[in-house]
Amino acid sequence: MQVSYFAIFLYFYKKTYQLIMMNQTRVVIEGIQPLVENGIFPIKRVIGELVQVSADVFPDGHDVVQAEVLYKKKTSDTWMHLRMQPLVNDRWEATFQVNEQGFYTYKIVAWVDYALNWQHGIERKIADSQKVTSELLEGVHYIDQILTDADEGQQQYLGYLKEIFTDADQYETAISEAVSKNLKSIFKAYPQRILANESAEFAVYVDRNKARFSTWYEFFPRSASETPGVHGSFNDCHRLLPRIAQMGFDVLYFPPIHPIGEVNRKGKNNSTDAHEGDVGSPWGIGSKLGGHKSIHPQLGSVDDFKKLIHAANELGIEIAMDFALQCAPDHPYVKEHPTWFKWRPDGTVQYAENPPKKYQDILPIYFETPDYKALWEELLSIAMYWIDCGIRIFRVDNPHTKPYFFWGWLIHKIKEKHPDILFLSEAFTRPKVMQQLAKQGFTQSYTYFTWRNSKSELMEYLTELTQTNQREYFRPNFWPNTPDINPYDLQSGMESVFLQKYFLAATLSSNTGIYGPVFEQMVHDAMPGKEEYYNSEKYQIQHWDWHKENKLTMLISKINHIRKERTSLQQTNNIKFCHIDNEYLLSYYKFSDDKQDETLMIVNLDPYYKQQGWIQLPLAEMGVREGHPVRVYDLITDSSYIWNKEWNYVELHPSLPYHLFKIYK
Amino acid sequence: MQVSYFAIFLYFYKKTYQLIMMNQTRVVIEGIQPLVENGIFPIKRVIGELVQVSADVFPDGHDVVQAEVLYKKKTSDTWMHLRMQPLVNDRWEATFQVNEQGFYTYKIVAWVDYALNWQHGIERKIADSQKVTSELLEGVHYIDQILTDADEGQQQYLGYLKEIFTDADQYETAISEAVSKNLKSIFKAYPQRILANESAEFAVYVDRNKARFSTWYEFFPRSASETPGVHGSFNDCHRLLPRIAQMGFDVLYFPPIHPIGEVNRKGKNNSTDAHEGDVGSPWGIGSKLGGHKSIHPQLGSVDDFKKLIHAANELGIEIAMDFALQCAPDHPYVKEHPTWFKWRPDGTVQYAENPPKKYQDILPIYFETPDYKALWEELLSIAMYWIDCGIRIFRVDNPHTKPYFFWGWLIHKIKEKHPDILFLSEAFTRPKVMQQLAKQGFTQSYTYFTWRNSKSELMEYLTELTQTNQREYFRPNFWPNTPDINPYDLQSGMESVFLQKYFLAATLSSNTGIYGPVFEQMVHDAMPGKEEYYNSEKYQIQHWDWHKENKLTMLISKINHIRKERTSLQQTNNIKFCHIDNEYLLSYYKFSDDKQDETLMIVNLDPYYKQQGWIQLPLAEMGVREGHPVRVYDLITDSSYIWNKEWNYVELHPSLPYHLFKIYK
Repeated sequence: MQVSYFAIFLYFYKKTYQLIMMNQTRVVIEGIQPLVENGIFPIKRVIGELVQVSADVFPDGHDVVQAEVLYKKKTSDTWMHLRMQPLVNDRWEATFQVNEQGFYTYKIVAWVDYALNWQHGIERKIADSQKVTSELLEGVHYIDQILTDADEGQQQYLGYLKEIFTDADQYETAISEAVSKNLKSIFKAYPQRILANESAEFAVYVDRNKARFSTWYEFFPRSASETPGVHGSFNDCHRLLPRIAQMGFDVLYFPPIHPIGEVNRKGKNNSTDAHEGDVGSPWGIGSKLGGHKSIHPQLGSVDDFKKLIHAANELGIEIAMDFALQCAPDHPYVKEHPTWFKWRPDGTVQYAENPPKKYQDILPIYFETPDYKALWEELLSIAMYWIDCGIRIFRVDNPHTKPYFFWGWLIHKIKEKHPDILFLSEAFTRPKVMQQLAKQGFTQSYTYFTWRNSKSELMEYLTELTQTNQREYFRPNFWPNTPDINPYDLQSGMESVFLQKYFLAATLSSNTGIYGPVFEQMVHDAMPGKEEYYNSEKYQIQHWDWHKENKLTMLISKINHIRKERTSLQQTNNIKFCHIDNEYLLSYYKFSDDKQDETLMIVNLDPYYKQQGWIQLPLAEMGVREGHPVRVYDLITDSSYIWNKEWNYVELHPSLPYHLFKIYK
Repeated sequence: MQVSYFAIFLYFYKKTYQLIMMNQTRVVIEGIQPLVENGIFPIKRVIGELVQVSADVFPDGHDVVQAEVLYKKKTSDTWMHLRMQPLVNDRWEATFQVNEQGFYTYKIVAWVDYALNWQHGIERKIADSQKVTSELLEGVHYIDQILTDADEGQQQYLGYLKEIFTDADQYETAISEAVSKNLKSIFKAYPQRILANESAEFAVYVDRNKARFSTWYEFFPRSASETPGVHGSFNDCHRLLPRIAQMGFDVLYFPPIHPIGEVNRKGKNNSTDAHEGDVGSPWGIGSKLGGHKSIHPQLGSVDDFKKLIHAANELGIEIAMDFALQCAPDHPYVKEHPTWFKWRPDGTVQYAENPPKKYQDILPIYFETPDYKALWEELLSIAMYWIDCGIRIFRVDNPHTKPYFFWGWLIHKIKEKHPDILFLSEAFTRPKVMQQLAKQGFTQSYTYFTWRNSKSELMEYLTELTQTNQREYFRPNFWPNTPDINPYDLQSGMESVFLQKYFLAATLSSNTGIYGPVFEQMVHDAMPGKEEYYNSEKYQIQHWDWHKENKLTMLISKINHIRKERTSLQQTNNIKFCHIDNEYLLSYYKFSDDKQDETLMIVNLDPYYKQQGWIQLPLAEMGVREGHPVRVYDLITDSSYIWNKEWNYVELHPSLPYHLFKIYK
């Protein structure tokens, strides 16, 4: 999702020009932050967030320089001007807020401000008791420059200055007015920007808030029936919505809902020979019954689906659709567009493989096809079709096995028309690959959280996500499990691990999700030696007790509701880890931008034993003097403590392995 | 000094196109190193140095990718191809050597290599005992692609492969040949580069070796006479050349040699009222006798100067000229080009000032003039004039008070015609400013070394210069003193400080220099409370004992000659500090690229007392196992030690406060 190409183009054209031609500007603008890949990709924000722009800005010599950030909604014609402030070491900064969805543009303009420079000089000379008659005459020149732009009152004042600056009898008054704040503020209000330099234009993409704060629940609609052995339908799903809403989830993600291929269909536990009645993997999309724009007949009709989307919306839930760009061998595309698949010399079509592994039920799309333009347009039309049905969120299956520039193009095309569409990247792969997908425009991404268990692993990973440049474009979504991943730590089946994992996911990250029924019911049977579920729902219908309530479901609901109330938990980057002298205890402090909401989390990572230790309150970040009492109120247990010291004793048992404190100061 | 603007322009055009249009390439190329400001400025090298190019290169999915660096002399039509090697985490690398002066260009090309990918896949399938008859047929396709390009012997072999790949009876032979190294090397030799991606083109500027390794000596030619009170001349200078050469200096830098202004001429010790006979500051350039293209009549004629340049060259010394772009009030330019100066409302011309300070003997050039194009061309013509007289090195006075883009333009213009010209930037100012001048093309720069005295200061500064991106474009030149700077530590006049300072300058940095006679003779009288010389030679003629020899001059000579022999001391970036358990002892290890020359320096920074401690040899860098004896030979004292251990005892007295060990393994 790239923008501002023309601007970048123009910028480099100008830079080129500036460097080989004779360019008179005296100001350098360099090292602009934040940028993603030098500004080729936009940075990301949600509505209401801040963009803190900084840059090295400096002239030759000692003259006074001024700089401003100009920003606007990309579609607007009017730039907002924001004066930058100097920090140290020639670094300047200004911060603006983005308040609308869609693309914003910003740039930096900087110039030697000759009027302010004159005032700065005359001030020093006057302080040095030098006679400044000639300098006052120069002042008249700077006043003349702004006279016509100034308002009436200012014009009167400036006229008066011209008079006294040229009147030897009024010298004392003149030098006092020459250095006045009044004159300075007028000079600042009407900058001449002589020989100004200008940076390239850079882009910010502003999403709706859901991009940053979302709570996902995944289930297979075909397992939604009350009756064992019966294929569930969208109509069955209606019954489940109130419970999901009451538990505090706001995104309901369904695996693919399309017709499932019959050729080479997979049987239970991923076996290659399916038996009569085997329902196949929903990711084996397409059959004689239709493809990516069709719905599996046993789930219902498109109208049923629209009704379900509507009913979910009424309860504050959005339905996220799976966007899985691959085909079963009997998908209609294979006959309609044979060039979109790769054909082997023996006349067979190429199925997916990662040698020596084979996936005979799946045909990858042949993106190298000469007919790629028609292909890309058709794939785009799939997303557009479901958007028209009311879908606003896509969970994209294996995006890393399709070309990056295809995603950049597709997401950009969709965002142009529908800026509120969100994309979750399901790429569990190498870091650079996951980052590239985020750069190309994916709104959120699955993460390595699923495999980060120790205190040091969690701290290191969160620091990478939130304190490096990744914070500008990579929004993590923490899932303890998915239908593909039954991680080793959950295979223990221990309640304490499930309690802890959900708490970590939901309080470390503001985007979180679970593969719901399996997680709630602590299902943990695995394929031997693998992080896969035994009798995985991917290949068969399951029958769940949809009414089940246990300590885990109660605590998930509680945490989800606390997240809705505590703004400090609605973003991920505002995290600060606290010192705590026990390797099993992890503690972190989070805060809303205005610090009106502050929370403190402490987790016992040891599933077996009680752990105790001393936690150091982050007093500096909290703005609290040592000795000032702080009340920490546990929002889970409704108990509270008064802490008077920087270091405080805590003790957590695996039966309830965390505190979620609201801080009162 | 920028190049490859058009290439950058084209790159961003292509990137733009790639991102919004449909682009089929599957490979990302990002994070290219080394670059200066994203490639806007060239990196710098000297002849024979290496350029180690690295980048993130990765395709979507799991296919085999290949990448190469293409590089060439900018003026050449032929790219050299160099295959990159994968490191970890999708990082790739290749290294090439630059062997000619001038601009080089490089870029990266990367592609999914379908032929190698086929071989990789079939190899895994064969290892998995899968039948690969169909894959062998695919192999024929990849063979056909390269058949016409291959040489005769290869064609025979490939024809044979086609035969056995399609013959069921030769299946065993076929699968053995399919995975052969022979076939792999042929595929590698004829890459198809299908849907390849290509980076921008980036520039390297290659200087002659003097840019990296130079030993400067500064004196005022007007003080060169043997007779006290007599104005020295170029003819006097001839007499001094052999001594300077024998001491191991190879650059002789003269302060400005032009006519000196008479209006507002400065007197002794920078006083504003000059007396009869005061010679004025050489930096107050221009009078009725001429300007920047004239020579002070008392120094001699242009022919005398050319003769001196020639005589110096014969002794291996280059004369560096001062390029000081400012004018005395009576400089001919002031009348000829009044718009090149700023005129005040009271009709006077603007002299230099940094309020409240005034420099009435100097007029700054008014770079904001509308006539700037003629101005720039005239300033360029000054440099060109002296280049035509034989000058190859300019020491540029206060470049930071002239526009950066002027320097970029001027240096580029000169280098285009004369790639061997070197520029030393005399900017003792803020870090970003000094770095910008280096980016714009200055070959070398004065540094903060002059004020870095403690062990931690020196280590921190050298680490910044040699281990950050500055190493790519900022070449330090270490001067313990200049006519402008009599630093506090030298004001002590202690021999141990002078000994230590020269050693540090000349062994930490491969470019070094001294304001010679003053330093050698340990002159240290200062203006009270200032880091300025009392009776500074800037304002008066001095009479030196040009034959003086002392311990300091002997050691300067010795060090200079060691530098000429030890290639490890001829570059600055190859430094590794060694642990040594004494805060007054500083130790560093340097090595030539091929590690054929290794030196180890140990300095006592305490001018008063003997210091002792244990130094840890950098065994890993030296490639030495612990316990293996190492002989360290002190090139200063011609004594040697055998060290068997990692930690070794050293002891240094201020009377000879350093070891300069050559390492024998």
